[in-house]
Amino acid sequence: MSGIGIVSAQCAHFTQPLHLKGGGVLPAFDLVYETYGTLNAARSNAILVCHALSGHHHLAGRTADEFGKPTANVGWWDNIIGPGRPLDTERFFIVGVNNLGGCHGSTGPGSVNPATAKPWGADFPVVTVEDWVDSQARLADRLGIESWAAVMGGSLGGMQALQWTLSYPDRVRHALVIAAAPKLSAENIAFNDVARQAILTDPDFHGGHFYEHGVRPLRGLRLARMLGHITYLSDDQMAEKFGRRLRVGAGSYGFDVEFEIESYLRYQGDKFAGVFDANTYLRMTKALDYFDPALDFDDDLVRALARARAKFLVVAFSTDWRFTPARSREIVHALVHNGQAVAYAEIDSAHGHDSFLMDEPHYHAVVDTYLQRVKL
Amino acid sequence: MSGIGIVSAQCAHFTQPLHLKGGGVLPAFDLVYETYGTLNAARSNAILVCHALSGHHHLAGRTADEFGKPTANVGWWDNIIGPGRPLDTERFFIVGVNNLGGCHGSTGPGSVNPATAKPWGADFPVVTVEDWVDSQARLADRLGIESWAAVMGGSLGGMQALQWTLSYPDRVRHALVIAAAPKLSAENIAFNDVARQAILTDPDFHGGHFYEHGVRPLRGLRLARMLGHITYLSDDQMAEKFGRRLRVGAGSYGFDVEFEIESYLRYQGDKFAGVFDANTYLRMTKALDYFDPALDFDDDLVRALARARAKFLVVAFSTDWRFTPARSREIVHALVHNGQAVAYAEIDSAHGHDSFLMDEPHYHAVVDTYLQRVKL
Repeated sequence: MSGIGIVSAQCAHFTQPLHLKGGGVLPAFDLVYETYGTLNAARSNAILVCHALSGHHHLAGRTADEFGKPTANVGWWDNIIGPGRPLDTERFFIVGVNNLGGCHGSTGPGSVNPATAKPWGADFPVVTVEDWVDSQARLADRLGIESWAAVMGGSLGGMQALQWTLSYPDRVRHALVIAAAPKLSAENIAFNDVARQAILTDPDFHGGHFYEHGVRPLRGLRLARMLGHITYLSDDQMAEKFGRRLRVGAGSYGFDVEFEIESYLRYQGDKFAGVFDANTYLRMTKALDYFDPALDFDDDLVRALARARAKFLVVAFSTDWRFTPARSREIVHALVHNGQAVAYAEIDSAHGHDSFLMDEPHYHAVVDTYLQRVKL
Repeated sequence: MSGIGIVSAQCAHFTQPLHLKGGGVLPAFDLVYETYGTLNAARSNAILVCHALSGHHHLAGRTADEFGKPTANVGWWDNIIGPGRPLDTERFFIVGVNNLGGCHGSTGPGSVNPATAKPWGADFPVVTVEDWVDSQARLADRLGIESWAAVMGGSLGGMQALQWTLSYPDRVRHALVIAAAPKLSAENIAFNDVARQAILTDPDFHGGHFYEHGVRPLRGLRLARMLGHITYLSDDQMAEKFGRRLRVGAGSYGFDVEFEIESYLRYQGDKFAGVFDANTYLRMTKALDYFDPALDFDDDLVRALARARAKFLVVAFSTDWRFTPARSREIVHALVHNGQAVAYAEIDSAHGHDSFLMDEPHYHAVVDTYLQRVKL
C-alpha cells in the first residue's frame, strides 16, 4: 500500500529565456512538479528523480478527484518512495518534475505558443538531456536547493542523472544511474526511428499540427508503443508470461488477436495512444538519440566524465537487452579509470529494461543501502 | 561473377484442389519456379530450395530483359549456387519455387479469384508451412521427382525443409535447416504482430482490398520492413557498419534523417514497399507464427520429429538474435534424442540472421562438404 497519501502537483513558471542546445530559445516555460517529504533546514536532503521516455512528475502517492478523494492514479515509482522505503520520505525531500516538451503539464508541444496563440505542435523545439538538466536547475533554484543530495533515474532518467554531474558538478553529491547507457547504440536508434516513422507517416499527424485538425495520430503512437514494449521486456519474461499461448477462440487463420502476446501489446499500445502526445514522444526519443556526453571528447568517455564531482551508484539488470549491463559498465569503467567514486550493482532480474520500475527486493535493497549512507 | 547465365521462370498450373490446414480450399493454383542444372536419369539429384519471408523462386543467375540481355536481377542465393559452388549445378538439379500466397508469380492475394474475377486480396486464405510443403510436393510430382536428394532453406525456408521431413518422410533424403527454429518465441511473434499492425492500420490497406482502390499500403509495408531489418542484423554489425555516424548536414535537431542507420532503414523500407505485396507479407508472417510441429505432440519436439527419415544438417549463426543458435540446438537435441542422423554447425558470423544469405566462407564450406557426401 502506498505510504504517501494524496499528493498534488505544483507549477513553477519561469520567465527568463532558456537557450536550448539545438539553438532555439524558449522565452518562458512552466515546469510541473510534485514533492514528497520535507526539505530540512540545511536544504541538504533533496533528491531529484528524473523520468524516462513516457514518465512524468507523479512519482508516488495518489492524485485526488474533484471531491478530494484518492484516485487510482498511483505514481509510477510509488514502490520505492515513501516512509521506510528506499527513498525514505521521513529522511529525504523528493522532487519529481515533468520534463520540458512533455505532455503532463510542463511546457510542451501541446502548450500554447505565445507567438501564435496556437499550440506549438511541430514548432516546439527539440529538447535535449542537457536542456532538461538546465531547466531542472532553475527549479532547484526556485526551491532553494543549492545542491542535491542525489539525482537519480532509470533509463533516460539515468542519463539525466549522469548529465547533472557534468553540467552542474558542484550541485549534485550523488548520482544514481539505473538501467542506462552512456549513449544509444545504432540498434537503439534504429528502434527509435521506426517508432518515429510510424508517427510521422500517420496521416493524422498533419506534420505535427494535428491539434488544429481535431485528430491525433493514434495509429502511429500505438505502433510506437507496441514496438517500445518489446524492447522493454525480456525474451525470457515474455516466454514465461505469454509463451505461445493462444487466446480462446484463436487459431482462426486470420489477423485478429490470436496469441496472448498480441493481446498484451495491442492493449498497451491502445492505452498509451489514448493519453500520450505524439509530438512529445518524438522529442523524448530524439533526446535519447542525441545523448552522448563523450561526443565533444573524441568519443573518450573517460575524459568526458572527468569533471564530475559526484559519487555514483550504477545499477544494471541482467535481462535488460535495451541497455545491457555491458553499457552500464562502460560508465563504471570510465569513472574507475578517473579514480572517481562508483559503486556498481548488476541485478539478476527477469523483467528486462522495465526492471528499474519493479519491486525487485535485491535492487531496492541496493538503492536503500546506498541512500542510507548518503550524508545530509 | 555468376556461374549461371540467363535464367527464366516457368509456371506449373495445378487443377486438383488443395485443401489447406486452415480449412480453406484453393480450387486451382499456379506455382512459378526456376531450375538450375540437369535432372539425372535416376532423378536422384534434385534439391529443393525453399525461400524465406520476402524471397521467391529466383535463386541464381540473371533474368533477361525484353531483348534477351541479362539484367541486374541476380538471384538471392546466387553466391551458393552454380558450377563448383556448394550447390553445384554440375552435380545437382536445383529447384526454386515461389510459395503460394507470394507476390512473384505463384497464386497469391494479388491473383484473380476465379469466383469473383477480381483480385483475391483479403479473401486469399492464410497458408501455412504445411500447405507450402503440400503444394511443393505437387510440383515434385510434376517434375518427376519421387524423392529429393535434399530440401533446404534459411529462416522460414529452413522450417519448410524441416516440415518436408515430417509431411513426406520418404520423399526427402537430406534436410538442411539453416538459421531456423522449431517454432517462434513470444518475442518473435510480437515483432511480427507490430509489423502486421502497421499494415492493417494503414488507411490505404482498405481491409486488404486495396487493389480495387488503386492504392497500396506503402507506409505500413515500409514500417514492417524497417522493423524486420533491425531483427535481421546483429547489434555488432550495426555498430560496425553505421555506429552513431551522423550524415552530412545532420545534427539538425529535427526529424529528417540524421544517423546513418536511419538512412539505411528508410531506404530499405522504401525499396521493399515499392515492390512487395502487403497481403503476402501478412501471410508470410502468419505462416511463421503458426509453425509449431510439436503442437500436436504436447509440445514434445522429440516425439514430433520422430517420424522424420531424412538426415539433417542444422546450421546456426553466432550473432543471429532472431533465431539464436539455442533455437537450432533444440532441433538438434530432439533429433539426437531420437537417434536420428544430424550434423550441426554453429558459424561465427557478424551478420546476424542475414548470415544465411551471405558469402561466409566457413558456412559455405560446411554446406559444400555436407552436400558432397550426399549420395545420388
